[in-house]
Amino acid sequence: MSQVAYRRLSVEQRRRQLLEAALGLFAHRAPEDVSLDDVAASVQVSRPLVYRYFPGGKQQLYEAALRSAADQLEGCFAQPQSGPMSSRLAQALDSYLAFVDEHDAGFKALLQGGSVVETSRTSAIVDEVRRSAAEQILFHLDVPEPGLKLRMMIRTWITAVEGASLIWLDEGKQPPLSELRDWLVDQFIALLTVTAARDRQCAEVAKRCLALEGGDGPVGDLTRRVLPVVTEAAHLLWQD
Amino acid sequence: MSQVAYRRLSVEQRRRQLLEAALGLFAHRAPEDVSLDDVAASVQVSRPLVYRYFPGGKQQLYEAALRSAADQLEGCFAQPQSGPMSSRLAQALDSYLAFVDEHDAGFKALLQGGSVVETSRTSAIVDEVRRSAAEQILFHLDVPEPGLKLRMMIRTWITAVEGASLIWLDEGKQPPLSELRDWLVDQFIALLTVTAARDRQCAEVAKRCLALEGGDGPVGDLTRRVLPVVTEAAHLLWQD
Repeated sequence: MSQVAYRRLSVEQRRRQLLEAALGLFAHRAPEDVSLDDVAASVQVSRPLVYRYFPGGKQQLYEAALRSAADQLEGCFAQPQSGPMSSRLAQALDSYLAFVDEHDAGFKALLQGGSVVETSRTSAIVDEVRRSAAEQILFHLDVPEPGLKLRMMIRTWITAVEGASLIWLDEGKQPPLSELRDWLVDQFIALLTVTAARDRQCAEVAKRCLALEGGDGPVGDLTRRVLPVVTEAAHLLWQD
Repeated sequence: MSQVAYRRLSVEQRRRQLLEAALGLFAHRAPEDVSLDDVAASVQVSRPLVYRYFPGGKQQLYEAALRSAADQLEGCFAQPQSGPMSSRLAQALDSYLAFVDEHDAGFKALLQGGSVVETSRTSAIVDEVRRSAAEQILFHLDVPEPGLKLRMMIRTWITAVEGASLIWLDEGKQPPLSELRDWLVDQFIALLTVTAARDRQCAEVAKRCLALEGGDGPVGDLTRRVLPVVTEAAHLLWQD
Protein backbone atom coordinates (compact mmCIF):
# COMPACT_ATOMS: atom_id res chain seq x y z
CA MET A 1 0.00 0.00 0.00
CA SER A 2 2.63 2.53 1.10
CA GLN A 3 4.91 1.24 -1.62
CA VAL A 4 2.24 2.05 -4.20
CA ALA A 5 1.70 5.50 -2.73
CA TYR A 6 5.45 6.06 -2.74
CA ARG A 7 5.75 5.29 -6.44
CA ARG A 8 2.93 7.54 -7.42
CA LEU A 9 4.10 10.72 -5.67
CA SER A 10 6.56 13.14 -7.26
CA VAL A 11 9.47 14.45 -5.19
CA GLU A 12 7.62 17.70 -4.60
CA GLN A 13 4.37 15.93 -3.71
CA ARG A 14 6.17 13.67 -1.27
CA ARG A 15 7.94 16.59 0.35
CA ARG A 16 4.64 18.40 0.75
CA GLN A 17 2.95 15.30 2.15
CA LEU A 18 5.67 14.88 4.79
CA LEU A 19 5.54 18.57 5.63
CA GLU A 20 1.78 18.53 6.09
CA ALA A 21 2.00 15.44 8.27
CA ALA A 22 4.70 17.13 10.37
CA LEU A 23 2.65 20.32 10.69
CA GLY A 24 -0.35 18.26 11.82
CA LEU A 25 1.71 16.48 14.46
CA PHE A 26 3.54 19.62 15.66
CA ALA A 27 0.17 21.42 15.87
CA HIS A 28 -1.22 19.18 18.58
CA ARG A 29 1.82 18.08 20.53
CA ALA A 30 4.86 19.74 22.06
CA PRO A 31 7.87 19.36 19.72
CA GLU A 32 9.62 17.04 22.17
CA ASP A 33 6.66 14.63 21.90
CA VAL A 34 6.93 14.32 18.11
CA SER A 35 9.47 11.85 16.65
CA LEU A 36 10.54 11.21 13.07
CA ASP A 37 8.99 7.77 13.48
CA ASP A 38 5.63 9.45 14.16
CA VAL A 39 5.96 11.48 10.98
CA ALA A 40 6.97 8.41 8.97
CA ALA A 41 4.14 6.31 10.44
CA SER A 42 1.50 8.97 9.78
CA VAL A 43 2.12 8.80 6.02
CA GLN A 44 3.05 5.09 6.03
CA VAL A 45 6.63 5.47 4.85
CA SER A 46 9.93 4.44 6.40
CA ARG A 47 12.09 6.59 8.65
CA PRO A 48 15.00 6.58 6.14
CA LEU A 49 12.65 8.00 3.51
CA VAL A 50 11.85 10.92 5.79
CA TYR A 51 15.61 11.47 6.23
CA ARG A 52 16.10 11.44 2.48
CA TYR A 53 13.78 14.45 2.20
CA PHE A 54 14.82 16.12 5.45
CA PRO A 55 18.47 15.17 6.15
CA GLY A 56 18.46 17.56 9.14
CA GLY A 57 15.86 15.31 10.79
CA LYS A 58 13.33 16.60 13.26
CA GLN A 59 14.84 20.09 13.55
CA GLN A 60 14.69 20.63 9.79
CA LEU A 61 11.15 19.26 9.58
CA TYR A 62 10.08 21.51 12.45
CA GLU A 63 11.56 24.61 10.84
CA ALA A 64 10.01 23.75 7.47
CA ALA A 65 6.61 23.20 9.13
CA LEU A 66 6.99 26.50 11.00
CA ARG A 67 7.91 28.23 7.74
CA SER A 68 4.72 26.96 6.10
CA ALA A 69 2.63 27.96 9.17
CA ALA A 70 4.22 31.43 9.07
CA ASP A 71 3.25 31.85 5.39
CA GLN A 72 -0.32 30.93 6.31
CA LEU A 73 -0.37 33.42 9.22
CA GLU A 74 1.11 36.21 7.11
CA GLY A 75 -1.89 35.82 4.81
CA CYS A 76 -4.31 36.57 7.68
CA PHE A 77 -3.94 40.33 7.55
CA ALA A 78 -4.06 40.51 3.75
CA GLN A 79 -7.73 41.59 3.65
CA PRO A 80 -9.37 43.83 1.02
CA GLN A 81 -8.77 47.52 1.75
CA SER A 82 -12.41 48.49 2.06
CA GLY A 83 -15.10 48.78 4.70
CA PRO A 84 -14.79 49.85 8.33
CA MET A 85 -11.44 49.12 9.98
CA SER A 86 -13.20 47.11 12.69
CA SER A 87 -14.53 44.62 10.08
CA ARG A 88 -11.11 44.25 8.48
CA LEU A 89 -9.53 43.61 11.87
CA ALA A 90 -12.30 41.17 12.79
CA GLN A 91 -11.73 39.21 9.58
CA ALA A 92 -7.97 39.09 10.11
CA LEU A 93 -8.51 37.99 13.72
CA ASP A 94 -10.95 35.28 12.62
CA SER A 95 -8.23 33.70 10.44
CA TYR A 96 -5.56 34.18 13.08
CA LEU A 97 -7.61 32.78 15.95
CA ALA A 98 -8.79 29.82 13.83
CA PHE A 99 -5.09 29.06 13.28
CA VAL A 100 -4.42 29.28 17.03
CA ASP A 101 -7.38 26.98 17.71
CA GLU A 102 -6.20 24.41 15.14
CA HIS A 103 -2.54 24.49 16.21
CA ASP A 104 -3.09 24.88 19.95
CA ALA A 105 -0.29 22.81 21.49
CA GLY A 106 2.25 23.79 18.84
CA PHE A 107 1.39 27.49 19.10
CA LYS A 108 1.81 27.34 22.86
CA ALA A 109 5.09 25.42 22.73
CA LEU A 110 6.48 27.80 20.13
CA LEU A 111 5.61 31.01 21.93
CA GLN A 112 6.05 30.14 25.58
CA GLY A 113 9.75 29.56 25.09
CA GLY A 114 12.18 26.96 26.34
CA SER A 115 11.22 24.48 23.62
CA VAL A 116 13.87 22.00 22.48
CA VAL A 117 13.53 22.98 18.83
CA GLU A 118 13.66 26.73 19.46
CA THR A 119 16.64 28.44 17.84
CA SER A 120 17.48 31.92 16.65
CA ARG A 121 16.08 30.78 13.28
CA THR A 122 12.67 29.83 14.68
CA SER A 123 12.57 33.11 16.65
CA ALA A 124 13.36 35.01 13.45
CA ILE A 125 10.41 33.36 11.68
CA VAL A 126 8.07 34.32 14.56
CA ASP A 127 9.37 37.90 14.45
CA GLU A 128 8.84 38.03 10.71
CA VAL A 129 5.15 37.14 11.18
CA ARG A 130 4.79 39.96 13.72
CA ARG A 131 6.55 42.45 11.43
CA SER A 132 4.41 41.43 8.49
CA ALA A 133 1.20 41.87 10.55
CA ALA A 134 2.34 45.37 11.59
CA GLU A 135 3.06 46.29 7.97
CA GLN A 136 -0.35 45.05 6.83
CA ILE A 137 -2.13 47.07 9.51
CA LEU A 138 -0.19 50.23 8.56
CA PHE A 139 -1.14 49.55 4.95
CA HIS A 140 -4.83 49.37 5.94
CA LEU A 141 -4.51 52.54 8.00
CA ASP A 142 -2.95 54.12 4.91
CA VAL A 143 0.02 55.61 6.76
CA PRO A 144 3.18 55.43 4.64
CA GLU A 145 5.38 57.14 7.25
CA PRO A 146 4.32 55.97 10.70
CA GLY A 147 5.77 57.85 13.67
CA LEU A 148 7.11 56.29 16.87
CA LYS A 149 3.82 56.25 18.78
CA LEU A 150 1.78 54.71 15.97
CA ARG A 151 4.45 52.05 15.36
CA MET A 152 4.59 51.22 19.06
CA MET A 153 0.81 51.20 19.33
CA ILE A 154 0.40 48.67 16.52
CA ARG A 155 3.22 46.43 17.68
CA THR A 156 1.91 46.51 21.26
CA TRP A 157 -1.55 45.49 20.04
CA ILE A 158 -0.02 42.59 18.08
CA THR A 159 1.80 41.51 21.24
CA ALA A 160 -1.50 41.72 23.12
CA VAL A 161 -3.26 39.57 20.48
CA GLU A 162 -0.53 36.94 20.77
CA GLY A 163 -0.60 37.11 24.57
CA ALA A 164 -4.39 36.95 24.74
CA SER A 165 -4.33 33.89 22.43
CA LEU A 166 -1.95 32.10 24.80
CA ILE A 167 -4.06 33.10 27.80
CA TRP A 168 -7.16 31.88 25.96
CA LEU A 169 -5.49 28.46 25.47
CA ASP A 170 -4.46 28.51 29.11
CA GLU A 171 -8.07 29.22 30.17
CA GLY A 172 -9.27 26.10 28.33
CA LYS A 173 -10.31 28.02 25.18
CA GLN A 174 -12.70 30.31 27.04
CA PRO A 175 -14.48 32.63 26.17
CA PRO A 176 -15.83 31.52 22.72
CA LEU A 177 -13.63 32.66 19.81
CA SER A 178 -16.13 35.28 18.59
CA GLU A 179 -16.08 36.98 22.00
CA LEU A 180 -12.29 36.92 22.10
CA ARG A 181 -12.20 38.43 18.61
CA ASP A 182 -14.63 41.23 19.52
CA TRP A 183 -12.65 41.99 22.67
CA LEU A 184 -9.40 42.22 20.66
CA VAL A 185 -11.06 44.63 18.19
CA ASP A 186 -12.27 46.68 21.19
CA GLN A 187 -8.70 46.71 22.46
CA PHE A 188 -7.42 48.07 19.16
CA ILE A 189 -9.98 50.91 19.29
CA ALA A 190 -9.15 51.60 22.95
CA LEU A 191 -5.40 51.60 22.36
CA LEU A 192 -5.72 53.84 19.31
CA THR A 193 -7.97 56.23 21.26
CA VAL A 194 -5.66 56.69 24.26
CA THR A 195 -2.59 56.94 22.02
CA ALA A 196 -4.43 59.52 19.90
CA ALA A 197 -4.99 61.52 23.09
CA ARG A 198 -1.25 62.36 23.11
CA ASP A 199 -0.12 61.99 19.50
CA ARG A 200 -1.20 64.04 16.50
CA GLN A 201 -0.64 61.33 13.86
CA CYS A 202 -2.61 58.77 15.87
CA ALA A 203 -5.38 61.36 16.33
CA GLU A 204 -5.58 61.75 12.54
CA VAL A 205 -5.70 57.97 12.07
CA ALA A 206 -8.37 57.61 14.79
CA LYS A 207 -10.47 60.32 13.15
CA ARG A 208 -10.32 58.62 9.75
CA CYS A 209 -11.06 55.18 11.24
CA LEU A 210 -14.03 56.39 13.28
CA ALA A 211 -15.52 58.13 10.23
CA LEU A 212 -15.66 54.74 8.46
CA GLU A 213 -17.57 53.06 11.30
CA GLY A 214 -21.36 52.87 11.50
CA GLY A 215 -23.67 53.02 14.52
CA ASP A 216 -24.74 49.39 13.99
CA GLY A 217 -21.16 48.10 13.82
CA PRO A 218 -18.91 46.85 16.65
CA VAL A 219 -17.46 50.30 17.39
CA GLY A 220 -20.97 51.76 17.63
CA ASP A 221 -21.85 48.95 20.01
CA LEU A 222 -18.68 49.58 22.04
CA THR A 223 -19.32 53.32 22.16
CA ARG A 224 -22.80 52.81 23.62
CA ARG A 225 -21.65 50.13 26.07
CA VAL A 226 -18.71 52.22 27.25
CA LEU A 227 -20.84 55.28 28.09
CA PRO A 228 -22.05 54.09 31.53
CA VAL A 229 -18.44 53.23 32.48
CA VAL A 230 -17.10 56.57 31.29
CA THR A 231 -19.88 58.40 33.14
CA GLU A 232 -18.14 57.30 36.34
CA ALA A 233 -15.20 59.46 35.23
CA ALA A 234 -17.29 62.63 34.86
CA HIS A 235 -15.73 64.12 38.02
CA LEU A 236 -12.33 63.88 36.28
CA LEU A 237 -13.21 66.35 33.53
CA TRP A 238 -12.32 69.27 35.74
CA GLN A 239 -9.02 69.73 37.52
CA ASP A 240 -9.36 69.98 41.30
CA MET B 1 45.10 41.51 45.53
CA SER B 2 42.46 38.96 44.43
CA GLN B 3 44.00 36.47 46.83
CA VAL B 4 43.44 38.88 49.74
CA ALA B 5 39.85 39.50 48.67
CA TYR B 6 39.31 35.73 48.37
CA ARG B 7 40.44 35.06 51.95
CA ARG B 8 38.27 37.77 53.42
CA LEU B 9 34.95 36.71 51.89
CA SER B 10 32.71 34.08 53.47
CA VAL B 11 31.24 31.35 51.26
CA GLU B 12 27.91 33.19 51.15
CA GLN B 13 29.59 36.55 50.39
CA ARG B 14 31.63 35.00 47.59
CA ARG B 15 28.58 33.33 46.10
CA ARG B 16 26.71 36.63 46.17
CA GLN B 17 29.67 38.48 44.65
CA LEU B 18 29.87 36.01 41.74
CA LEU B 19 26.12 36.16 41.26
CA GLU B 20 26.09 39.95 41.13
CA ALA B 21 28.98 39.96 38.69
CA ALA B 22 27.11 37.45 36.50
CA LEU B 23 23.89 39.47 36.66
CA GLY B 24 25.83 42.58 35.62
CA LEU B 25 27.37 40.78 32.66
CA PHE B 26 24.15 39.04 31.60
CA ALA B 27 22.33 42.39 31.86
CA HIS B 28 24.30 44.04 29.09
CA ARG B 29 25.24 41.19 26.78
CA ALA B 30 23.44 38.29 25.14
CA PRO B 31 24.06 35.08 27.15
CA GLU B 32 26.17 33.60 24.34
CA ASP B 33 28.55 36.56 24.67
CA VAL B 34 29.23 35.96 28.37
CA SER B 35 31.82 33.34 29.37
CA LEU B 36 32.78 31.96 32.77
CA ASP B 37 36.17 33.60 32.19
CA ASP B 38 34.41 36.98 31.96
CA VAL B 39 32.68 36.34 35.28
CA ALA B 40 35.94 35.20 36.90
CA ALA B 41 37.87 38.18 35.50
CA SER B 42 35.26 40.71 36.62
CA VAL B 43 35.79 39.76 40.29
CA GLN B 44 39.47 38.88 39.86
CA VAL B 45 39.24 35.22 40.72
CA SER B 46 40.14 32.07 38.80
CA ARG B 47 37.81 30.09 36.58
CA PRO B 48 38.09 26.97 38.80
CA LEU B 49 36.91 29.04 41.75
CA VAL B 50 33.76 30.02 39.81
CA TYR B 51 33.22 26.29 39.09
CA ARG B 52 33.59 25.47 42.78
CA TYR B 53 30.61 27.71 43.53
CA PHE B 54 28.66 26.94 40.37
CA PRO B 55 29.56 23.39 39.26
CA GLY B 56 26.93 23.62 36.51
CA GLY B 57 28.99 26.39 34.91
CA LYS B 58 27.45 29.12 32.81
CA GLN B 59 23.95 27.59 32.69
CA GLN B 60 23.77 27.38 36.49
CA LEU B 61 25.13 30.92 36.90
CA TYR B 62 22.62 32.20 34.36
CA GLU B 63 19.69 30.53 36.09
CA ALA B 64 20.84 31.79 39.51
CA ALA B 65 21.22 35.33 38.12
CA LEU B 66 17.75 35.08 36.52
CA ARG B 67 16.33 33.84 39.84
CA SER B 68 17.74 36.89 41.64
CA ALA B 69 16.45 39.22 38.87
CA ALA B 70 13.01 37.60 39.15
CA ASP B 71 12.92 38.22 42.91
CA GLN B 72 13.73 41.87 42.24
CA LEU B 73 10.99 42.14 39.59
CA GLU B 74 8.41 40.45 41.80
CA GLY B 75 9.00 43.23 44.31
CA CYS B 76 7.98 45.90 41.76
CA PHE B 77 4.24 45.46 42.18
CA ALA B 78 4.41 45.24 45.98
CA GLN B 79 3.33 48.88 46.50
CA PRO B 80 1.33 50.23 49.47
CA GLN B 81 -2.40 49.65 49.01
CA SER B 82 -3.42 53.29 49.11
CA GLY B 83 -3.97 56.20 46.77
CA PRO B 84 -5.37 56.20 43.24
CA MET B 85 -4.77 53.02 41.24
CA SER B 86 -3.02 55.05 38.53
CA SER B 87 -0.32 56.18 41.01
CA ARG B 88 0.22 52.63 42.25
CA LEU B 89 0.56 51.36 38.69
CA ALA B 90 2.88 54.25 37.82
CA GLN B 91 5.12 53.43 40.77
CA ALA B 92 5.23 49.73 39.89
CA LEU B 93 5.99 50.59 36.27
CA ASP B 94 8.78 52.97 37.33
CA SER B 95 10.56 50.10 39.11
CA TYR B 96 9.86 47.65 36.30
CA LEU B 97 10.98 49.97 33.50
CA ALA B 98 14.12 50.99 35.43
CA PHE B 99 14.94 47.29 35.58
CA VAL B 100 14.39 46.94 31.82
CA ASP B 101 16.60 49.98 31.22
CA GLU B 102 19.40 48.61 33.42
CA HIS B 103 19.24 45.06 32.03
CA ASP B 104 18.50 45.94 28.41
CA ALA B 105 20.43 43.31 26.44
CA GLY B 106 19.72 40.54 28.94
CA PHE B 107 16.00 41.36 29.08
CA LYS B 108 15.81 41.29 25.29
CA ALA B 109 17.76 38.03 24.96
CA LEU B 110 15.63 36.39 27.63
CA LEU B 111 12.26 37.37 26.20
CA GLN B 112 12.80 37.28 22.47
CA GLY B 113 13.46 33.55 22.59
CA GLY B 114 15.94 31.29 20.89
CA SER B 115 18.65 32.03 23.44
CA VAL B 116 21.25 29.31 24.09
CA VAL B 117 20.61 29.31 27.85
CA GLU B 118 16.81 29.17 27.54
CA THR B 119 15.26 26.04 29.03
CA SER B 120 11.90 25.05 30.44
CA ARG B 121 13.35 26.15 33.82
CA THR B 122 14.15 29.69 32.66
CA SER B 123 10.70 29.93 31.00
CA ALA B 124 9.09 28.82 34.27
CA ILE B 125 10.89 31.63 36.14
CA VAL B 126 9.66 34.21 33.60
CA ASP B 127 6.11 32.85 33.91
CA GLU B 128 6.32 33.03 37.68
CA VAL B 129 7.14 36.76 37.47
CA ARG B 130 4.11 37.31 35.22
CA ARG B 131 1.85 35.32 37.56
CA SER B 132 3.11 37.20 40.58
CA ALA B 133 2.48 40.57 38.88
CA ALA B 134 -1.09 39.49 38.04
CA GLU B 135 -1.69 38.43 41.65
CA GLN B 136 -0.35 41.73 42.98
CA ILE B 137 -2.63 43.73 40.67
CA LEU B 138 -5.67 41.68 41.72
CA PHE B 139 -4.67 42.30 45.33
CA HIS B 140 -4.60 46.07 44.65
CA LEU B 141 -7.95 45.89 42.86
CA ASP B 142 -9.24 44.03 45.94
CA VAL B 143 -10.86 41.22 43.96
CA PRO B 144 -10.46 37.88 45.76
CA GLU B 145 -12.40 35.91 43.13
CA PRO B 146 -11.56 37.29 39.69
CA GLY B 147 -13.69 36.07 36.80
CA LEU B 148 -12.42 35.06 33.37
CA LYS B 149 -12.57 38.51 31.76
CA LEU B 150 -10.81 40.31 34.60
CA ARG B 151 -8.08 37.64 34.72
CA MET B 152 -7.58 37.85 30.97
CA MET B 153 -7.61 41.64 31.01
CA ILE B 154 -4.85 41.82 33.63
CA ARG B 155 -2.71 39.14 32.01
CA THR B 156 -3.12 40.78 28.61
CA TRP B 157 -2.01 44.13 30.03
CA ILE B 158 1.07 42.46 31.59
CA THR B 159 1.86 40.94 28.18
CA ALA B 160 1.47 44.40 26.64
CA VAL B 161 3.83 45.94 29.22
CA GLU B 162 6.44 43.30 28.45
CA GLY B 163 5.94 43.70 24.70
CA ALA B 164 6.05 47.50 24.86
CA SER B 165 9.30 47.27 26.87
CA LEU B 166 10.89 45.12 24.15
CA ILE B 167 9.61 47.48 21.44
CA TRP B 168 10.98 50.43 23.46
CA LEU B 169 14.44 48.77 23.48
CA ASP B 170 14.07 48.06 19.77
CA GLU B 171 13.25 51.74 19.12
CA GLY B 172 16.52 52.83 20.78
CA LYS B 173 14.87 53.54 24.16
CA GLN B 174 12.41 56.07 22.74
CA PRO B 175 10.18 57.73 23.97
CA PRO B 176 11.57 58.78 27.41
CA LEU B 177 10.72 56.32 30.19
CA SER B 178 8.21 58.65 31.87
CA GLU B 179 6.20 58.88 28.63
CA LEU B 180 6.28 55.12 28.18
CA ARG B 181 5.09 54.70 31.79
CA ASP B 182 2.20 57.17 31.36
CA TRP B 183 1.18 55.46 28.11
CA LEU B 184 1.14 52.04 29.83
CA VAL B 185 -1.03 53.44 32.65
CA ASP B 186 -3.36 54.88 29.97
CA GLN B 187 -3.48 51.43 28.38
CA PHE B 188 -4.53 49.86 31.67
CA ILE B 189 -7.38 52.37 32.03
CA ALA B 190 -8.39 51.85 28.38
CA LEU B 191 -8.32 48.07 28.63
CA LEU B 192 -10.28 48.09 31.89
CA THR B 193 -12.84 50.46 30.37
CA VAL B 194 -13.56 48.42 27.23
CA THR B 195 -13.58 45.16 29.19
CA ALA B 196 -15.98 46.78 31.69
CA ALA B 197 -18.27 47.58 28.75
CA ARG B 198 -19.07 43.85 28.46
CA ASP B 199 -18.39 42.41 31.91
CA ARG B 200 -20.16 43.20 35.18
CA GLN B 201 -17.23 42.44 37.52
CA CYS B 202 -14.86 44.61 35.46
CA ALA B 203 -17.50 47.38 35.48
CA GLU B 204 -17.55 47.23 39.30
CA VAL B 205 -13.75 47.36 39.44
CA ALA B 206 -13.64 50.26 36.96
CA LYS B 207 -16.21 52.18 39.01
CA ARG B 208 -14.21 51.74 42.22
CA CYS B 209 -10.92 52.66 40.50
CA LEU B 210 -12.33 55.79 38.86
CA ALA B 211 -13.79 56.98 42.19
CA LEU B 212 -10.25 57.02 43.64
CA GLU B 213 -8.85 59.19 40.84
CA GLY B 214 -8.71 63.00 40.97
CA GLY B 215 -9.14 65.54 38.18
CA ASP B 216 -5.52 66.64 38.49
CA GLY B 217 -4.16 63.07 38.21
CA PRO B 218 -3.17 61.10 35.12
CA VAL B 219 -6.66 59.67 34.55
CA GLY B 220 -8.17 63.17 34.75
CA ASP B 221 -5.57 64.29 32.22
CA LEU B 222 -6.36 61.31 29.98
CA THR B 223 -10.12 61.90 30.25
CA ARG B 224 -9.76 65.49 29.07
CA ARG B 225 -7.30 64.62 26.28
CA VAL B 226 -9.47 61.75 25.05
CA LEU B 227 -12.60 63.92 24.69
CA PRO B 228 -11.73 65.43 21.28
CA VAL B 229 -10.94 61.94 19.94
CA VAL B 230 -14.17 60.45 21.30
CA THR B 231 -16.16 63.36 19.87
CA GLU B 232 -15.33 61.93 16.45
CA ALA B 233 -17.36 58.86 17.48
CA ALA B 234 -20.51 60.87 18.32
CA HIS B 235 -22.26 59.57 15.18
CA LEU B 236 -21.86 56.03 16.56
CA LEU B 237 -24.07 56.64 19.59
CA TRP B 238 -27.18 55.88 17.59
CA GLN B 239 -27.77 52.75 15.56
CA ASP B 240 -28.39 53.43 11.88
